[in-house]
Amino acid sequence: MKKATIHEIAKALNIDSSTVSRALNDSDRVRAKTKKRVLDKARELGYTRNLLASNLRRNKSNTIGVVVPRISRYFFSSTIAGIEEMAYQAGYNVIICQSLEEVLREQKIIRNLMANRVVGILISVTMQTRDTAHLTECFENGTPLVFFDRHVTGIKQTGKVLLDDVRGGFEATEHLIHQGCKKIVHFTAPLEVEIYKNRHEGYRSALAKYDLPYDENLVFVSTLLKEDGYRLAGKIVEELDGVDGIFSANDFAALGALNYLKKSGIRVPGDIAIVGFSNEPTSAVIEPSLTTVDQSGTEIGRLACNLLLDYFENGNTLINDKTIMIPPKLIVRESSKRY
Amino acid sequence: MKKATIHEIAKALNIDSSTVSRALNDSDRVRAKTKKRVLDKARELGYTRNLLASNLRRNKSNTIGVVVPRISRYFFSSTIAGIEEMAYQAGYNVIICQSLEEVLREQKIIRNLMANRVVGILISVTMQTRDTAHLTECFENGTPLVFFDRHVTGIKQTGKVLLDDVRGGFEATEHLIHQGCKKIVHFTAPLEVEIYKNRHEGYRSALAKYDLPYDENLVFVSTLLKEDGYRLAGKIVEELDGVDGIFSANDFAALGALNYLKKSGIRVPGDIAIVGFSNEPTSAVIEPSLTTVDQSGTEIGRLACNLLLDYFENGNTLINDKTIMIPPKLIVRESSKRY
Repeated sequence: MKKATIHEIAKALNIDSSTVSRALNDSDRVRAKTKKRVLDKARELGYTRNLLASNLRRNKSNTIGVVVPRISRYFFSSTIAGIEEMAYQAGYNVIICQSLEEVLREQKIIRNLMANRVVGILISVTMQTRDTAHLTECFENGTPLVFFDRHVTGIKQTGKVLLDDVRGGFEATEHLIHQGCKKIVHFTAPLEVEIYKNRHEGYRSALAKYDLPYDENLVFVSTLLKEDGYRLAGKIVEELDGVDGIFSANDFAALGALNYLKKSGIRVPGDIAIVGFSNEPTSAVIEPSLTTVDQSGTEIGRLACNLLLDYFENGNTLINDKTIMIPPKLIVRESSKRY
Repeated sequence: MKKATIHEIAKALNIDSSTVSRALNDSDRVRAKTKKRVLDKARELGYTRNLLASNLRRNKSNTIGVVVPRISRYFFSSTIAGIEEMAYQAGYNVIICQSLEEVLREQKIIRNLMANRVVGILISVTMQTRDTAHLTECFENGTPLVFFDRHVTGIKQTGKVLLDDVRGGFEATEHLIHQGCKKIVHFTAPLEVEIYKNRHEGYRSALAKYDLPYDENLVFVSTLLKEDGYRLAGKIVEELDGVDGIFSANDFAALGALNYLKKSGIRVPGDIAIVGFSNEPTSAVIEPSLTTVDQSGTEIGRLACNLLLDYFENGNTLINDKTIMIPPKLIVRESSKRY
């Protein structure tokens, strides 16, 4: 009997092939009801996934390579957890490499992974990656690559799974406005980096929605280290009047600002409310605990891995230039609760 | 001109070959003065390290495989940082795999790394690893393997880099005694696991040194999760009299206990002083901040990688059954400061 494909299941149910694929991979993004329909139909049509056999035919290993800037960041270790979960279920091994934000290192890693004949690559690029030769080489070499979180534009034959950073920035800022803040500063990194550009855009559109003026002097660009947040909080207190809210594009700078304000006897959230971004583990234990935006790392990792598995099965027909956007989750804690 | 070897440099200076190797790798464990002597002699004798060429002759990749239980633990991400630093300097790529504490997964990973022709493996095994067939296979296959932190006994052809856990347990307990604690409980995990056995031994010998009785009823075995610490602190307060100190074999359980005591209005360190183990990032930001034992992860990673580089150069003659013991560092913070 000829085995059914994902496309045939999708056609029979009149739904999207990618939904079928996600349902078969038990993704959280598919409703239980849809999952059941897909699984029933898959059984009925005699569908069985058999990726390894097809990879072995292509003389590939059963190893997926993952490249991230730093494994020690909470977001990246979460995405890796999601990737490993899906990959392992499908019979793949995972190897992980750190670019440490160095483009040269990233290039070496990619070439090394190809030399090791990995079957595919999942990557979140460095902040400096502009030249894409090492990435397009993968496709020329028959090694598919899928982006998650940080990506480069212009590579159309693949897909990406991104956090909706505009929405994250919007919700963080709107939350501060709902808490009564009227003069909200924004800590960000250089706006050429897409995630920071998007968080800034969210900040700006929340201000616009509630008729608060956008003021360039309230936007501070730094490397977003803890020390930057500490220093900038000092600057705000000494040089600006009436600031009552801070939205920081990462938790580290938010934690630095919190430290400065506590030491200076300024009440958080009473005088100044703070919201961070990324839900680092320390945010939950500091006092006051930090309101932040969770980046849904595990879910992003799962979906990125599923895209790659789709690619193995269907070539790039399904994921060609596809972007999956994941909503962030605002985690409200003490640092912003004024009511 | 024939190239000098590490042995010849060592002989000329009348010092140990492993000291020469570490000096050439710029290890922190060698004094600046010794480093200079070694580098001068190496230049004089025309020594150049050339590992890659010898590996290429052996038809190997230039990739080192690292296997750890979990990358998200601070200790392991620190060891990986130390490993990458040394490996990268010597011209190697590093790929990282997580066993997630599953023996079967560890076995798969090892076989996969060999299939990928890695040049050597650095491993910290799962808590359950007892069967060593997959590890001895590496040597039979010509792939050297070096242990760090968690290891198995009985594989004599290699070396290991370990934290001196007995000393760590001793110093943590002695510190509590110096702070005036007379009835100190110990949170630990099953004592078949060597690191916990050793930390417990350190606890016991510190009590003995200061003539405090060892009481089995003060030793609590659990999985050392945060919830375990929370639950056990409740048990201590309700069922025991006069406990004035807790030494927990990891930070998670210590943080759980701290939470319980704070919620119950028991003063830390006034009523009960607490010391943890592993220096997780949250330990520094919680209030009161947690006194703990730092495991020197980066240093352990560097030295383990150096042992492997020594192996590449000299075979197992240098590292045969060698154990390098790294001292831990007691980090005194607020949770134990009574004076």
